[in-house]
Amino acid sequence: MANKSKDNFDLSFCKNISLKIFNEVRELTRDIEGVTRESYGKGENITSNYLINLAKQNDLFIEIDKASNIYFSLNNNVNEKYILIGSHIDSVPMGGNFDGLAGVVAGLAILIEIKNKKILDLPNIKVLALRGEESAWYGINYIGSKAIFGLLNEKNLNLKHREKDLKLFEAMNKCQVDLNIIKSKKTLLDKREILAFVEVHIEQGPVLIQKKWPAAIVTGIRGNFRYRNIICKGSAGHSGTIPRWLRNDAVFATSDLIMRMDDHWSSILQHGGDLVLTCGIFFTDSNHHAMSRIPGELYFSFESRSQDEETLLSLDDLLKSECKTIEKERGVYFTFDEMIKSKPAKINNKILKKLQYAAQLNQLKDALIPSGAGHDASVFSNEGIPTGMIFIRNANGSHNPSETMDINDYLIGITILKDFIFNF
Amino acid sequence: MANKSKDNFDLSFCKNISLKIFNEVRELTRDIEGVTRESYGKGENITSNYLINLAKQNDLFIEIDKASNIYFSLNNNVNEKYILIGSHIDSVPMGGNFDGLAGVVAGLAILIEIKNKKILDLPNIKVLALRGEESAWYGINYIGSKAIFGLLNEKNLNLKHREKDLKLFEAMNKCQVDLNIIKSKKTLLDKREILAFVEVHIEQGPVLIQKKWPAAIVTGIRGNFRYRNIICKGSAGHSGTIPRWLRNDAVFATSDLIMRMDDHWSSILQHGGDLVLTCGIFFTDSNHHAMSRIPGELYFSFESRSQDEETLLSLDDLLKSECKTIEKERGVYFTFDEMIKSKPAKINNKILKKLQYAAQLNQLKDALIPSGAGHDASVFSNEGIPTGMIFIRNANGSHNPSETMDINDYLIGITILKDFIFNF
Repeated sequence: MANKSKDNFDLSFCKNISLKIFNEVRELTRDIEGVTRESYGKGENITSNYLINLAKQNDLFIEIDKASNIYFSLNNNVNEKYILIGSHIDSVPMGGNFDGLAGVVAGLAILIEIKNKKILDLPNIKVLALRGEESAWYGINYIGSKAIFGLLNEKNLNLKHREKDLKLFEAMNKCQVDLNIIKSKKTLLDKREILAFVEVHIEQGPVLIQKKWPAAIVTGIRGNFRYRNIICKGSAGHSGTIPRWLRNDAVFATSDLIMRMDDHWSSILQHGGDLVLTCGIFFTDSNHHAMSRIPGELYFSFESRSQDEETLLSLDDLLKSECKTIEKERGVYFTFDEMIKSKPAKINNKILKKLQYAAQLNQLKDALIPSGAGHDASVFSNEGIPTGMIFIRNANGSHNPSETMDINDYLIGITILKDFIFNF
Repeated sequence: MANKSKDNFDLSFCKNISLKIFNEVRELTRDIEGVTRESYGKGENITSNYLINLAKQNDLFIEIDKASNIYFSLNNNVNEKYILIGSHIDSVPMGGNFDGLAGVVAGLAILIEIKNKKILDLPNIKVLALRGEESAWYGINYIGSKAIFGLLNEKNLNLKHREKDLKLFEAMNKCQVDLNIIKSKKTLLDKREILAFVEVHIEQGPVLIQKKWPAAIVTGIRGNFRYRNIICKGSAGHSGTIPRWLRNDAVFATSDLIMRMDDHWSSILQHGGDLVLTCGIFFTDSNHHAMSRIPGELYFSFESRSQDEETLLSLDDLLKSECKTIEKERGVYFTFDEMIKSKPAKINNKILKKLQYAAQLNQLKDALIPSGAGHDASVFSNEGIPTGMIFIRNANGSHNPSETMDINDYLIGITILKDFIFNF
């Protein structure tokens, strides 16, 4: 019975099958640059079919839900609890090969090797290949995950394709989605059966490279508060004739605001908080601005992201109160458009501990990192399912063809996931 | 002989003749909005002819130089020293009635009243109506003044009209300018004969209104150092996935720079320096910027103005050194285009004292102000002629039809000029 021991798990098998899948799916979905796997479209279908065939060859049990997400498992264990390992199989247009796919392949490789070695005494596992995670195609993300929990509304389903004359529901219909069920907002699986949802994903940021961690455990998924357009209104005037004390300079006032928020940011980090601040859009009006004109208005966006909703709330209070102070001091006023909110997603503490333990077995005890980008995991977490995430180091960011993941880093991620399952 | 005493000078005569000139020239040069007196063009010629006729009616001696500037005096006192009172008679398109004209009328009103009352024991006076001060028409300012000192070059003379198919030299030619003389760069008057050049001008800024001074003495004319386009280059990236310590955010870095320069500005003012700073143009690239993209580049202009060249030089040093510090701290770098310089013009200290004394006689001893905008006076000053300026309070700035000057403020300006002449 030696064959049935956990010790027989062979990482080199996982390496080989993963490389095979990565290479073959890349070839099947190759574009002018990188790969293109359209949400509820061609490349995603190709990937889905490829994985289903592979699962059949390996004698896995396959289920497809009413939203055309695919579940792989060892057997048809109806009404039994299971660990769900999932990520998405779509990509952005001309994106990288690993964003999403790496997480699905990690689960599949482990599942097949467990099957091969007939390893016993493990919790049930299902591997989930999710559809439609990328917002690039219809302006909405987590479509497959949202469908699972009955979270898609009419407005979502009527969203238009970025280029084609095609609505989301039409695209879903072509992929055998049961739109009646989706529109009824029924939940497509029984939440109570899910012991945990774990997503492996490339980091999409530079932190693991900087920290020299091949992989890390995600501590939370950042939510965000965003203003698309804040206007700082001062008074325009001749730059030569108006002295400092009579100026209402929108650029100086907003720079003042940015530096005050930068100080708060720094202080929140020093106290152990999680936060990033970004003003991606920032401009004086090109119809009026001139080198010798005191700028009377400045337009800018403001985004704060944190794992902690309280941090976002108090940062917004700070933003408003600093604006008030600057309004008095510099004779300007700030107007805000409507705030766009996205709630942070919590990583379940028990799952986090178990993942940390698995990371510790791989010399990565303190490799902890917040997720700045959103993931399918946040949908599962916000639905109350105990959720965890493993990040794998990758170079050159994500959503671009130069996205790079070292197979050895990936194997460390796989090993953490395997150890998490084996010690669950 | 009572008629020949300074005491007989009658301000109400000056008021009446000034109002008459202001009203009649406004009517003659009225546009859809405000007035238009094109440099070496129609409205300026109309004004010139009007003033020449008025001078003839009042039996003044009239000279016209080779650049078609007009000089009014009591007699033809060849080779005698004189005080030159001058300003310009052109305007921006649809500008205000007082920008320039007020200074010429002030001189003329005093000159005519001196003639009327036959006041003796005064220095010789010439009143100068200058042409082509506004850069709005040919992109170059002080054309009449520059022509006097042989400062116009071929490039200047070939500048094109803002709208018409007309070059500056062609326009000047139509106004009887002797282009051969202008091109030879001969000086059109004997500098040694000029005891002082004094220009009365509306303030064009809000300081006198705020200070409640009807008029003030100008302490210096600000020069400036300008960069049209400084680029702060950082690294773009996903706003969610890059933590603070790995960011090279161009907006935060430049805001930091602005606030550091704001501190230096404040400190220079506290130590009695003269300075204004302006970043009139400030923008992230609209082709790339996005709410969730860390801005990788920011483009901005930077202008410093001061009466003191040393202040401008040291501020430029500060700017460069703060950039260096921020480059290290925030992982960005700044690139500067070529600096555009305009030297400050000094107000002659003896003239300043005499003007201050005249202001003191009018309860305005401490009414001192730098000139932020440039003026013909700066050309005379930089040519080594003892130069002074008197500002008159005006509302609504300048270069627009809502420019407003109260006649009572104007009369205080006239009185200061009269007292300056009478006590020279």
